Amino acid sequence: MPKISSKGRLMPASPIRKLVPYAEEAKKKGINVIHLNIGQPDIKTPKVALDAVRNHKIEVLAYSRTEGSDNYREKIANYYGMHDINVTAKDIIVTTGGSEALAFTMGSILDEGDEIIIPEPFYANYNGFATANGVKVIPIVSAIETNFALPPFSEFEKNITPKTKAILICNPGNPTGYLYNHDEIKQLVSLVKNHDLFLVADEVYREFAYDGKHHHSILKEEGIENNAIIVDSVSKRYSMCGARIGCIVSKNQEVIHTALKFAQARLSPPTLAQIASEAALDTPQSYFDDVITEYVSRRNLLVSELEKIDNIKIAKPSGAFYCVVQLPVKNSDDFAQWLLEHFNLDKETVMVAPAGGFYATEGLGINQIRIAYVLDKKQLVRAVKILKKGLQQYLAK
Amino acid sequence: MPKISSKGRLMPASPIRKLVPYAEEAKKKGINVIHLNIGQPDIKTPKVALDAVRNHKIEVLAYSRTEGSDNYREKIANYYGMHDINVTAKDIIVTTGGSEALAFTMGSILDEGDEIIIPEPFYANYNGFATANGVKVIPIVSAIETNFALPPFSEFEKNITPKTKAILICNPGNPTGYLYNHDEIKQLVSLVKNHDLFLVADEVYREFAYDGKHHHSILKEEGIENNAIIVDSVSKRYSMCGARIGCIVSKNQEVIHTALKFAQARLSPPTLAQIASEAALDTPQSYFDDVITEYVSRRNLLVSELEKIDNIKIAKPSGAFYCVVQLPVKNSDDFAQWLLEHFNLDKETVMVAPAGGFYATEGLGINQIRIAYVLDKKQLVRAVKILKKGLQQYLAK
Ligand SMILES: Cc1ncc(COP(=O)(O)O)c(C=O)c1O
Ligand SMILES: Cc1ncc(COP(=O)(O)O)c(C=O)c1O
Repeated sequence: MPKISSKGRLMPASPIRKLVPYAEEAKKKGINVIHLNIGQPDIKTPKVALDAVRNHKIEVLAYSRTEGSDNYREKIANYYGMHDINVTAKDIIVTTGGSEALAFTMGSILDEGDEIIIPEPFYANYNGFATANGVKVIPIVSAIETNFALPPFSEFEKNITPKTKAILICNPGNPTGYLYNHDEIKQLVSLVKNHDLFLVADEVYREFAYDGKHHHSILKEEGIENNAIIVDSVSKRYSMCGARIGCIVSKNQEVIHTALKFAQARLSPPTLAQIASEAALDTPQSYFDDVITEYVSRRNLLVSELEKIDNIKIAKPSGAFYCVVQLPVKNSDDFAQWLLEHFNLDKETVMVAPAGGFYATEGLGINQIRIAYVLDKKQLVRAVKILKKGLQQYLAK
Repeated sequence: MPKISSKGRLMPASPIRKLVPYAEEAKKKGINVIHLNIGQPDIKTPKVALDAVRNHKIEVLAYSRTEGSDNYREKIANYYGMHDINVTAKDIIVTTGGSEALAFTMGSILDEGDEIIIPEPFYANYNGFATANGVKVIPIVSAIETNFALPPFSEFEKNITPKTKAILICNPGNPTGYLYNHDEIKQLVSLVKNHDLFLVADEVYREFAYDGKHHHSILKEEGIENNAIIVDSVSKRYSMCGARIGCIVSKNQEVIHTALKFAQARLSPPTLAQIASEAALDTPQSYFDDVITEYVSRRNLLVSELEKIDNIKIAKPSGAFYCVVQLPVKNSDDFAQWLLEHFNLDKETVMVAPAGGFYATEGLGINQIRIAYVLDKKQLVRAVKILKKGLQQYLAK
């Protein structure tokens, strides 16, 4: 029997996937599982986007241009303009989700054996794309005590080696919910300038900035035009994760030209989804205002409910829709599994994401979980109540 | 300025891309360019598929399952069953086009430095996926004189090294149009069994088999369950290239399990396109009968028109919708560019795909072109007439 690749063996499995069979078992036993573990918003997709697909006049569902249609990329450039990010269509490649933007970016700037520095905890799939490219992730730990603020400059400096090619940040962060302030962005800018590195910013949660705070895109900074690469996506912005449309944005034409070659190999991004995404750009501002209001009130409720639980630490999020919580348990993998396998409150339990999978440093985050507040407030209150009772019972074992 | 990756530099640009500016220039001069160069069929997408999207009731366009919905995969398994390919949903991962199926397959079975044997000429993007994985393509030349039949067994044997992990075939072939007969498939089966290799078959043109000949899928062969991987796609089958849905099929669960990890990193294939693709499975047989009839009559017409040109060789295709032609020119890149830059017949010219890009061996195929017969017969006749006149004038220079 022929052998799979070593790379294939090294590829990380989704950390949540391990829990899925337990969730399925629970459901079979008639237990309702409230999902706090997924980044799939319950928010409705803008009607303009869905209608555009409903009203399509397509007769031949053809390939689009490899880099996305000119029209759509011009409109995206215009969207960035409204966010004070000054780019044109030629700086943009439309991708199949932010996921593909990450894959193409890594392929374009990193060779096997190269290093990329990422503050941890971070979006777990960065590991997958790094492994697929034979790239080494160098984590720099950020602390729950600071709500996962940027680690000190010196920590980055210490970890930069001749193999370091890039720093990757997620702003606002998944799983942290942390929104970098302007000072932090400036620190990163001077780091990449001093060391001639790429700065990749995953800004798929750009719109989700709360409490009057502003999102600081790296592409607003001067003097790092050649260093900066943005990874973006329509998934969360318009609650249309299933579309699979994102983009790479960079003023560095060598990066764009290189990413385009990766894009050519896969021909084109999905056509129907581009129709929806182009239409989504006409979503009225009121939609976003409502969504932000909803997430803020959910976050406030979530945090205040969580605060009723003893001996936990909460990283209060100021962006995105995730919240990392430190629990008085030894191992949140075990706890998460136990909640599904052995616990229910009136035939209901919760599924949480153990946070270990968001850290690259072995052993970090194993007493933390990530909660996604992508469900309505009534359910959220109920979920935290279940979590609290579950925790009490788990600790009393 | 930070440097892009060596891999990025090595990534091949689309060979046709070089010609695009010349085609655009021609159009600006008011010249109509007939495209013989692209694999984008003009055939209408089945109405059932387009209607399914038009009638969607989606409120939240959510991620689908990473491996594709259970429902869709069961229906795909059923489709294979009707083609005497005995698989179940668990043997299938839905991908973003056949392109992603190729990328995941290569990642799952090949490490940097490994070798994959591919009969040439072959689909040019195999190079891109190989380069992205640091994999070495070992071409084995097939000849226009045999219509690009499978090269002799001994040629494969000679090229198998300890680094060889797989043989990749395209059946029927792009660009060759060649349909492997049962004997050829059996030869490949014994090769991969003897040498413990994977056999990857790109069968995206499965339905396009002409002249009463049958398509022989590698998954119909016994005893290579662990070796065989099929790459498939809805793109050509239902003329819905823009959907971006394909799949990997293998009875080897280690392969499926590994490919699934690559799939998890990118979350899910496009949801709208899956709706269309699932509905497309209900396309009536009459659709395919009509399409095949159309392609066969186009092919016959194309070949008989081409035969009127002096000193050319035609590989008569028995599948897919491509035809490789050898011209009495030194360099078909130059000829193709000249047709766009310096030639027109009553304000019309043609764009062809120079075949050099389909060969990995330097210098092979540089007097060949690929013609895709994805346009109506009137245009096809006109296009060949332009090609003939163009060739005469080019040779008379
Ligand atoms: C931080 C971050 N980046 C990228 C992605 C990829 O999203 P998509 O491929 O749907 O755009 C996600 C999805 O959850 C994410 O959380
Ligand atoms: C032989 C072959 N394989 C794979 C593909 C990829 O097609 P898709 O990604 O649209 O499924 C193509 C497209 O032209 C092809 O010709």
